[in-house]
Amino acid sequence: MSNLKKYTLNEIPHYKVHGRTVPGACPLPLFFNGSAVELNVSGSELLVDLEVSWQNIDIWVTVEVNGELMSRQMLTPGEHCLCLFRGMSAEPVKNVRITRETQAMIEDEDCCLIVHGFRTDGSFYPVPKGKYTLEFVGDSITSGEGTYGAKECFDWIPMYMSYSRDYAKMTAEALDADAYLFSKGGWGVLSSWDNNPNCNIPSRYKQLCGLCCGPKNESLGAFQPYDFSKRKADAVIVNLGTNDASAFQQPAWHDPATGQTFKQHLNPDGTYREEDLNRFEDAVVSFLQMLRECNPQAHIVWCYGMLGYELSFAINDAMTRYIRESGDHNVIFLQLPNTTEETVGSNGHPGELSQRRAARVLTEYLRDYFSRTNGAAL
Amino acid sequence: MSNLKKYTLNEIPHYKVHGRTVPGACPLPLFFNGSAVELNVSGSELLVDLEVSWQNIDIWVTVEVNGELMSRQMLTPGEHCLCLFRGMSAEPVKNVRITRETQAMIEDEDCCLIVHGFRTDGSFYPVPKGKYTLEFVGDSITSGEGTYGAKECFDWIPMYMSYSRDYAKMTAEALDADAYLFSKGGWGVLSSWDNNPNCNIPSRYKQLCGLCCGPKNESLGAFQPYDFSKRKADAVIVNLGTNDASAFQQPAWHDPATGQTFKQHLNPDGTYREEDLNRFEDAVVSFLQMLRECNPQAHIVWCYGMLGYELSFAINDAMTRYIRESGDHNVIFLQLPNTTEETVGSNGHPGELSQRRAARVLTEYLRDYFSRTNGAAL
Amino acid sequence: MSNLKKYTLNEIPHYKVHGRTVPGACPLPLFFNGSAVELNVSGSELLVDLEVSWQNIDIWVTVEVNGELMSRQMLTPGEHCLCLFRGMSAEPVKNVRITRETQAMIEDEDCCLIVHGFRTDGSFYPVPKGKYTLEFVGDSITSGEGTYGAKECFDWIPMYMSYSRDYAKMTAEALDADAYLFSKGGWGVLSSWDNNPNCNIPSRYKQLCGLCCGPKNESLGAFQPYDFSKRKADAVIVNLGTNDASAFQQPAWHDPATGQTFKQHLNPDGTYREEDLNRFEDAVVSFLQMLRECNPQAHIVWCYGMLGYELSFAINDAMTRYIRESGDHNVIFLQLPNTTEETVGSNGHPGELSQRRAARVLTEYLRDYFSRTNGAAL
Amino acid sequence: MSNLKKYTLNEIPHYKVHGRTVPGACPLPLFFNGSAVELNVSGSELLVDLEVSWQNIDIWVTVEVNGELMSRQMLTPGEHCLCLFRGMSAEPVKNVRITRETQAMIEDEDCCLIVHGFRTDGSFYPVPKGKYTLEFVGDSITSGEGTYGAKECFDWIPMYMSYSRDYAKMTAEALDADAYLFSKGGWGVLSSWDNNPNCNIPSRYKQLCGLCCGPKNESLGAFQPYDFSKRKADAVIVNLGTNDASAFQQPAWHDPATGQTFKQHLNPDGTYREEDLNRFEDAVVSFLQMLRECNPQAHIVWCYGMLGYELSFAINDAMTRYIRESGDHNVIFLQLPNTTEETVGSNGHPGELSQRRAARVLTEYLRDYFSRTNGAAL
Repeated sequence: MSNLKKYTLNEIPHYKVHGRTVPGACPLPLFFNGSAVELNVSGSELLVDLEVSWQNIDIWVTVEVNGELMSRQMLTPGEHCLCLFRGMSAEPVKNVRITRETQAMIEDEDCCLIVHGFRTDGSFYPVPKGKYTLEFVGDSITSGEGTYGAKECFDWIPMYMSYSRDYAKMTAEALDADAYLFSKGGWGVLSSWDNNPNCNIPSRYKQLCGLCCGPKNESLGAFQPYDFSKRKADAVIVNLGTNDASAFQQPAWHDPATGQTFKQHLNPDGTYREEDLNRFEDAVVSFLQMLRECNPQAHIVWCYGMLGYELSFAINDAMTRYIRESGDHNVIFLQLPNTTEETVGSNGHPGELSQRRAARVLTEYLRDYFSRTNGAAL
Repeated sequence: MSNLKKYTLNEIPHYKVHGRTVPGACPLPLFFNGSAVELNVSGSELLVDLEVSWQNIDIWVTVEVNGELMSRQMLTPGEHCLCLFRGMSAEPVKNVRITRETQAMIEDEDCCLIVHGFRTDGSFYPVPKGKYTLEFVGDSITSGEGTYGAKECFDWIPMYMSYSRDYAKMTAEALDADAYLFSKGGWGVLSSWDNNPNCNIPSRYKQLCGLCCGPKNESLGAFQPYDFSKRKADAVIVNLGTNDASAFQQPAWHDPATGQTFKQHLNPDGTYREEDLNRFEDAVVSFLQMLRECNPQAHIVWCYGMLGYELSFAINDAMTRYIRESGDHNVIFLQLPNTTEETVGSNGHPGELSQRRAARVLTEYLRDYFSRTNGAAL
Repeated sequence: MSNLKKYTLNEIPHYKVHGRTVPGACPLPLFFNGSAVELNVSGSELLVDLEVSWQNIDIWVTVEVNGELMSRQMLTPGEHCLCLFRGMSAEPVKNVRITRETQAMIEDEDCCLIVHGFRTDGSFYPVPKGKYTLEFVGDSITSGEGTYGAKECFDWIPMYMSYSRDYAKMTAEALDADAYLFSKGGWGVLSSWDNNPNCNIPSRYKQLCGLCCGPKNESLGAFQPYDFSKRKADAVIVNLGTNDASAFQQPAWHDPATGQTFKQHLNPDGTYREEDLNRFEDAVVSFLQMLRECNPQAHIVWCYGMLGYELSFAINDAMTRYIRESGDHNVIFLQLPNTTEETVGSNGHPGELSQRRAARVLTEYLRDYFSRTNGAAL
Repeated sequence: MSNLKKYTLNEIPHYKVHGRTVPGACPLPLFFNGSAVELNVSGSELLVDLEVSWQNIDIWVTVEVNGELMSRQMLTPGEHCLCLFRGMSAEPVKNVRITRETQAMIEDEDCCLIVHGFRTDGSFYPVPKGKYTLEFVGDSITSGEGTYGAKECFDWIPMYMSYSRDYAKMTAEALDADAYLFSKGGWGVLSSWDNNPNCNIPSRYKQLCGLCCGPKNESLGAFQPYDFSKRKADAVIVNLGTNDASAFQQPAWHDPATGQTFKQHLNPDGTYREEDLNRFEDAVVSFLQMLRECNPQAHIVWCYGMLGYELSFAINDAMTRYIRESGDHNVIFLQLPNTTEETVGSNGHPGELSQRRAARVLTEYLRDYFSRTNGAAL
């Protein structure tokens, strides 16, 4: 390994960052699952210099070489020099990607993963952009919860989350697109699964990464406004509503600090209380307005159904209202097949088979949409 | 064959009729694709006596033995004594079904298929009812158009239609249910694919079989009111809207006889004209009211998407209006995966693979629904 | 139908016969499963004139249009004018094939199927030869026994046999080849499954169709020497040995007429008695010599295993002896995956899934072989 | 992590070692791919203490929790305390396996992986034996070469090898069996792929692990005679011959040190030279004798074909000779489907799909065999 040259990221002439980021940041934080650095590099060996910190929520990464998954592992806090490949023929250019596997973790203020640089005996080559840019906005489904682990396992642990078996990855690969993820397990459009109204995705969407916390992440720029004009999304895929449906079934949320209380109610006959349903629909309409404001060019696809179809009518109703009020027809509702005993993964969440099935429906829809609109030219 | 005994249908102690019918009719007309006579019979040989008539639209049938497809064939006009099996061990009881493969044909007033009786050296045994009764109301998708024939073929011919590769059959089999079909290619909720407002399913739904014509079918009772109380549907699956979406793209329909004209319009920007969309939504609401009136106990599942998602918002909007106005929450909207180049069949219609995929989503939904509601007990 | 023109086969300028036949015969007997007449024809309608005879063993046929199965049916004795398609756009040329579905039946001397001609309002176009010619020599596996019918069914009836779900058809289609079949259920290389030494395939192989009987078939040329030089096989696929293995387990065969007796014996420890095994191996060697004599140019593939691997060593041993003695290395042994509970069909025979799996292994082997030898040019 | 208790392996009351090993060794070397320590353990967290050494050939491991793959990673030389899980509910018993992913490496005398112990806040529970014990003896195919990595990649690197996608693992899992592997890429029965006669599996088979080298491995007992009586194999699956076939195509091997030369020759017509083929067959016969001597109770399955069928006749011939000479019929030849462009992995070796297909054929064979022989009772 003696002839390896060490590069900080900004010394590398060609590399590609996947996911929302501060352009040009060095060192580079990877905030979301799916956030990654991708290289085209020659040489016999490649290592990455990573800085990892967390207190109680572990971080996982994957390594892909030439598009194939090679490793998946937990990283302990500290500095790591991870070998991405070694012993390979020096001349051919290898495509390599080091990817954050686990979602942004607001539960652990220390939780962050930073890429400092790479070491290699090879040279760097340009990494082309994907044909399309897709942004995926979601909850635990989009955070790949349940895609690893046995069906019998019901722990909430990072080990069971992933990008590597996520429908977002499958869809992006099938379309030769770049995927940007913005997702957080348990959160909804209006509130979290257990009625916490602060845990709603729209409130954080305009920040680079509002889904983490703490001074370290702040210093990395996580809470800065995100510049949507830098890499414009061709499509924004929203996969939200599942936790909002759950909130109707859960007890009220109380904030002991503020005394604040929140609850979505069922009627005695089990249907949704109208005013609470309207509150959810209002949140959907507002979020659609925000998404459009941030992504004027994007096709907006609201996906729903992988963990139940309960709020289908409400989401459609809100979307219809949004369309009527805005005149914006560049939105669509796409139901994804529900997860079954056959396709479920760990922790009662969609397993790899369910994610694959969802990816297929979404991929087919987007392929058709892009072919009709010549979306590549957007 | 000398020792075969000939039975008219009413001489047979046990048989089961699939599909809408006049209870006890003998001879028995099979009006719809999926309409069938099913027997449990011993003996070495079984033949069926059929009466077939048509002028220009041929009729096809299939034969199943012990749940497996054995034959599929066109029947020419005339009387036929068709061998369903022969040369088998006499003792075991065989389950046999002779099924109409092709939809009701309003295009040919002579088109009808009548079962007169059977011949066998065996005895008849009871045929149990399915666990559930499902009614499928639809258009060419439910008529199985495209499920036979090569992708390159674009003729509208009965040979390409079927029940044997229809999602209705697949769903019923997976759930151990009986399927009743009511479907007609080209028809919609409001009008036909080419804007003929007379070709709408709701206008015929309450008749036993309003989807055929002519004095012969009339004499067979086709246009009599259907008695929905006889075999109550546990679920009514509607798969309509595809032709209504097409109508917006097609030229106006003119009736030279009456001078009547009809057309669903697009706005200049390609969106649906609001008053025409409302007209469609009104038709959906009215049809839901009719379906509920006829089937007070049934779960109503409105499926859509196998040939495009265009009217998803409109159908959902109409369903939401219906729910609000009626307070009836026993309805659901289920998007079925769109047909792709991989899954398309002949004549641009869903092929067997598309039907199978739709059947899986629908089966999973209904299995879950019935398990939650203990639907078997309905 | 008034404008249909009737053609005897010899009035048709272009047609292709599949399977062994008397070149130019009119009317044309279809002796084997897979024997067929294929047309490229325009017009809106096509009918075939068939002559069918049998006493106790029924004959089945299939119709394919543009490569897709359209119908499968039993034909009763008599003359039939079967509609192959109707109502189609007249201009496009359709590829149509009427195929014998059931094997040659030595059990019924009347059993035969004869094509007299066709009727159409269209014109005939050339039908190209397949890229390769494959001859399949086998037993019930190659006769497709078990490919139709439920697993619970154990009758020996033609309805359960087929060419339409046979590995020979699947292989030929995958390779764009023409398939010629020569197969008979129950027969082996040395004897039948129940030790009848007269029921061995080699004794009939050199006749056009030695697997039927009776004066009618004789008059059709069935017992004439087959002219192997007319359409040379690129590969001969033998799938025999299964019944020879069975013979070791079955009681002796006695011919009450001649007093002749035959039996393959097991040793007390359950292994094969050496002299009987040698007798089988000698038969394999002799058959290989005959196959080579008749098909000097052909690659010979001896397949085995779809119903058990018992005689693998014996077949290999015989083949090794044949190679050593002849110096002919243009032979190979190919084990096909055994049939399991998952893949079995009716009557304990390989179901469609087993046939498909076998076809895949064989197809892959032949594709590789032809690509290495540039077999197309043979 | 403060409340984790550290255990050396011999302080742990229950654990199971997979693969050949020195019974009771502590610390415990994992010599082969598939060698593993398996625990049933409660607690919220589990770590393993590993000692890793290598100079130029890296070692990979996988972690499974409750039967599901969680991580796969390269280990750098040194001591590692690897987290196997954390943050889980303490009470449930988790099944955990840490497995060597890469084969024994004779190319690097330092290459070894040693398990020292575990750390946990939980307790240990018994780990039941598998229903059967299977020993897999093979080459690169059994070493899983090519099961990771893209088809376009042709480096010989450990990263592309595995146990996690190996047919041995798939077979063992399907049969609820324990798998013991003994395999080395490039080696054959008589010589290596490039004619090195010292690289033959039989010469090392009786040692615990004769496929590595160096004083460190020696001190770990690698070269000691293996005690076959400790855990008797119910079946020994040999998958060899592929490299012996290659040797005929490769130039002669020369040992510059000793002047020794070796070469398997083709005749001018491309067939195998008889005396060289005999030499190979003799080696097969001898190896069968050795396998029987070491495993008197085992069913011996010689698999072949995943990278070409070339030596099928020779292997069968040798097996027939062995059977004849020994009277031992407890052996079988099983052809596995060849690898195709569709199923190939990296480095021209069987990819995961090929391994899965092979595993299915082998599993089906063994399931049938064990059910016939009541093998579980062996």
